[in-house]
Amino acid sequence: MPSPPLKIEFVINSILMQLRAGTLRPGQRLPSIRDEAQRLGIGKNTVVEAYLRLVGQGILAAKPGSGYYVVRSPPAPPLEREIPLAAATDRISLLAEQLDRRLPIRPGDGRPPTEWLETSELRRYLSYQRFQEADSYNSSWGYKPLRERLCGALAERGIACSDDQLLMTHGANHGMDLVIRRYVAPGDNVLVDDPGYYPLLAKLALAGANAIGVDRRHDGPDVADLEAKAKKSGARLFFTQSLAHNPTGGSITFGTAYSVLRAASNFNLLVIEDDPFADILPYTAPRLAALDQLDRVIYIGTFSKTLAGSFRTGYLAAAPRLASEINELKVITAVSTSAHDERLIFQLVEHGHYLKHLRRLRTRASAATAASVEALEALGLNIRRPIGGGFYLWVELPEHMGSEDLVHDAAAAGIFIAPAANFSTSQEPAPAMRVNVAHGADPTFLNWLREQMGRR
Amino acid sequence: MPSPPLKIEFVINSILMQLRAGTLRPGQRLPSIRDEAQRLGIGKNTVVEAYLRLVGQGILAAKPGSGYYVVRSPPAPPLEREIPLAAATDRISLLAEQLDRRLPIRPGDGRPPTEWLETSELRRYLSYQRFQEADSYNSSWGYKPLRERLCGALAERGIACSDDQLLMTHGANHGMDLVIRRYVAPGDNVLVDDPGYYPLLAKLALAGANAIGVDRRHDGPDVADLEAKAKKSGARLFFTQSLAHNPTGGSITFGTAYSVLRAASNFNLLVIEDDPFADILPYTAPRLAALDQLDRVIYIGTFSKTLAGSFRTGYLAAAPRLASEINELKVITAVSTSAHDERLIFQLVEHGHYLKHLRRLRTRASAATAASVEALEALGLNIRRPIGGGFYLWVELPEHMGSEDLVHDAAAAGIFIAPAANFSTSQEPAPAMRVNVAHGADPTFLNWLREQMGRR
Repeated sequence: MPSPPLKIEFVINSILMQLRAGTLRPGQRLPSIRDEAQRLGIGKNTVVEAYLRLVGQGILAAKPGSGYYVVRSPPAPPLEREIPLAAATDRISLLAEQLDRRLPIRPGDGRPPTEWLETSELRRYLSYQRFQEADSYNSSWGYKPLRERLCGALAERGIACSDDQLLMTHGANHGMDLVIRRYVAPGDNVLVDDPGYYPLLAKLALAGANAIGVDRRHDGPDVADLEAKAKKSGARLFFTQSLAHNPTGGSITFGTAYSVLRAASNFNLLVIEDDPFADILPYTAPRLAALDQLDRVIYIGTFSKTLAGSFRTGYLAAAPRLASEINELKVITAVSTSAHDERLIFQLVEHGHYLKHLRRLRTRASAATAASVEALEALGLNIRRPIGGGFYLWVELPEHMGSEDLVHDAAAAGIFIAPAANFSTSQEPAPAMRVNVAHGADPTFLNWLREQMGRR
Repeated sequence: MPSPPLKIEFVINSILMQLRAGTLRPGQRLPSIRDEAQRLGIGKNTVVEAYLRLVGQGILAAKPGSGYYVVRSPPAPPLEREIPLAAATDRISLLAEQLDRRLPIRPGDGRPPTEWLETSELRRYLSYQRFQEADSYNSSWGYKPLRERLCGALAERGIACSDDQLLMTHGANHGMDLVIRRYVAPGDNVLVDDPGYYPLLAKLALAGANAIGVDRRHDGPDVADLEAKAKKSGARLFFTQSLAHNPTGGSITFGTAYSVLRAASNFNLLVIEDDPFADILPYTAPRLAALDQLDRVIYIGTFSKTLAGSFRTGYLAAAPRLASEINELKVITAVSTSAHDERLIFQLVEHGHYLKHLRRLRTRASAATAASVEALEALGLNIRRPIGGGFYLWVELPEHMGSEDLVHDAAAAGIFIAPAANFSTSQEPAPAMRVNVAHGADPTFLNWLREQMGRR
């Protein structure tokens, strides 16, 4: 046997391997110190030390008089995917130095000085007056003051998040794309909400992955379905939107959120939680990332749905190691995000404009929701409840309105509809459509709907 | 044999296949009309019609009294790569409708109305006052007025480019990343400038491709080396920067540009030309895209080097089919680019601020170049000539300064340098470094250099 520190590592790794393989699971008791020492032919102190380190990592817990138990699987597991990141790493450090500007004398820099560009005479046209500094490129993680603000916003939502866990993206879709490129290989099975966010389905198809739909119910993912499909598929990732779900409009409950995380722990899943409406929803809404504290949850946010679609600005928060791996990929592929947009958003937040805007937006959305619900129910249509507070209603349709022709018939009448088939991994989902509350009470739409419903 | 139009197609396809397989090459004479008609058992008129259509496509040329000759290979060939784009395509059409907004009634839309977001009361903080409209998301190709402006700028550079050929990107790196994701499979050989742009090398490593360096000389790529490596490697793509080359500072000559394109035609290469300094270089500088007219050249531009690094705004121009394929990939992975930044840039261009800024930038860059050249040559260092008008000097170093320690020694003195090794696919390039003209006359740097040169 090797030296004592290596023996401890050996015991720890053997436990981690059993946890990853699923032969040891949360709730199970570990062999006693004596049995394990005997089995491995090592000293009891070594086993004690290994167990204690795993207690320190929150993976085991000691119950006095009873022994050691598994509390949870090791965090963030699906990282075995080998991508040729290492081959690119010496370039990353060079790129990072360009972005982070640690050295004062910079003949090796590839960029012109900011005094030649955005902080030159041009400055006055770029609304930078209120800023002391304006780095030419962003730091590799994004504009720091905005990132700090966002960590504050996450803390309000109950998600503790430090500076090395949050990176800026070109929007939620860019965040998902980075996660997929980093952790999904062609042929991989990946779990998704069904119905779910269709641009995610497109990205998974592009990556050559198999999207496996987990039934989305009024209170969140169907946990039994999640467990069955995780078990059968061996998937390691689950993409989900907990709140104001796109397309069904509903929000997860605390009970379901807890069960989803337990299932994720049992089946060693990394969960990617998309939360585009966070800024108009209650701080205290149930978020997987708040329960789990960014352990096995990657949390994705954006300003596209609540500030402006014309910015491509979002963010991603994750365990430090994952955040760093994902940011490396971002730097290689896109160098950085728009510090200009990030600065402008920071300014809107800092001066209270964004907060005032959110109040107005909430009022608008809830008035439109009420009007749409009233008009659609007056037609005799059933809307899935409860409604989660975002922009979507999930409207069930009569059986005969499930046809693919419906989209074309609507388009012929100048109406853009989004039927269930767009959001599902299955070919024939139950007839339904997503209705945007801003347009749900449109008279032309309502008349067309009434006509369609009358047809047989 | 099939019907006459299909017979013509048959003849055309048979010629194209021979060209793609390399059994028929530019310069070679085709069989006579009579021989070909006899060989295929079809009418002479059919052969004439097929040949004439290929003349119309610029692939064949008729020499009166002599017959038909191959002028060039069919354009844009390396498109055989199957990526699972089709699987994602039904989602693309939905995304595209969201972006392009063709239908007036929009209950199926996933987005809130812009009147709720950026054109709401918030508008006054977003400097949109001067704009009539402000779409929530960009069109899928980018902000149209800026794209039209850019087509105009390309026309000035001699590159005819229509609306369906130019898409906006999150900068030049995003453009390269899109091309690589679309057309490069793991294990592919890809030709690059050597020395060349190191973030490109990182992206190719990430894609699992083999970057094969083509010697970069003072007047552009070494064409004999390009031909030899294209032949040996079977590579289908060549990434190059013709003007104010990063890192060597030089620019291609017309003669070399012509030879590069001939080699590309002979070896069926798609050429990706990066032109980040275009806006401070002469309109009439030799550009591959101008000679080739976006036939087998993809042209990549950016505002990062001449306007502001804090915008992530660039563009890509290509043959319509390629542009469309690349834009589809952009939509799936990133939805769109920042219409906000694109609008702001358009405004700077439209009002003449950008033009004034470019004049100042040219003055700054050339003054800094003169000062750096003088200071470095005073130390006895050799700078590669001619200098191409961008931000870089390629400074040859004494043999003993080729070590890897140099970077660390410099960093210890607070100096960030970029030695040849960073830019090369080979492990031991000749000792040299890229010097940014903005920092080349920095006294601390010059003192450090003098010290290093004295050591043995």
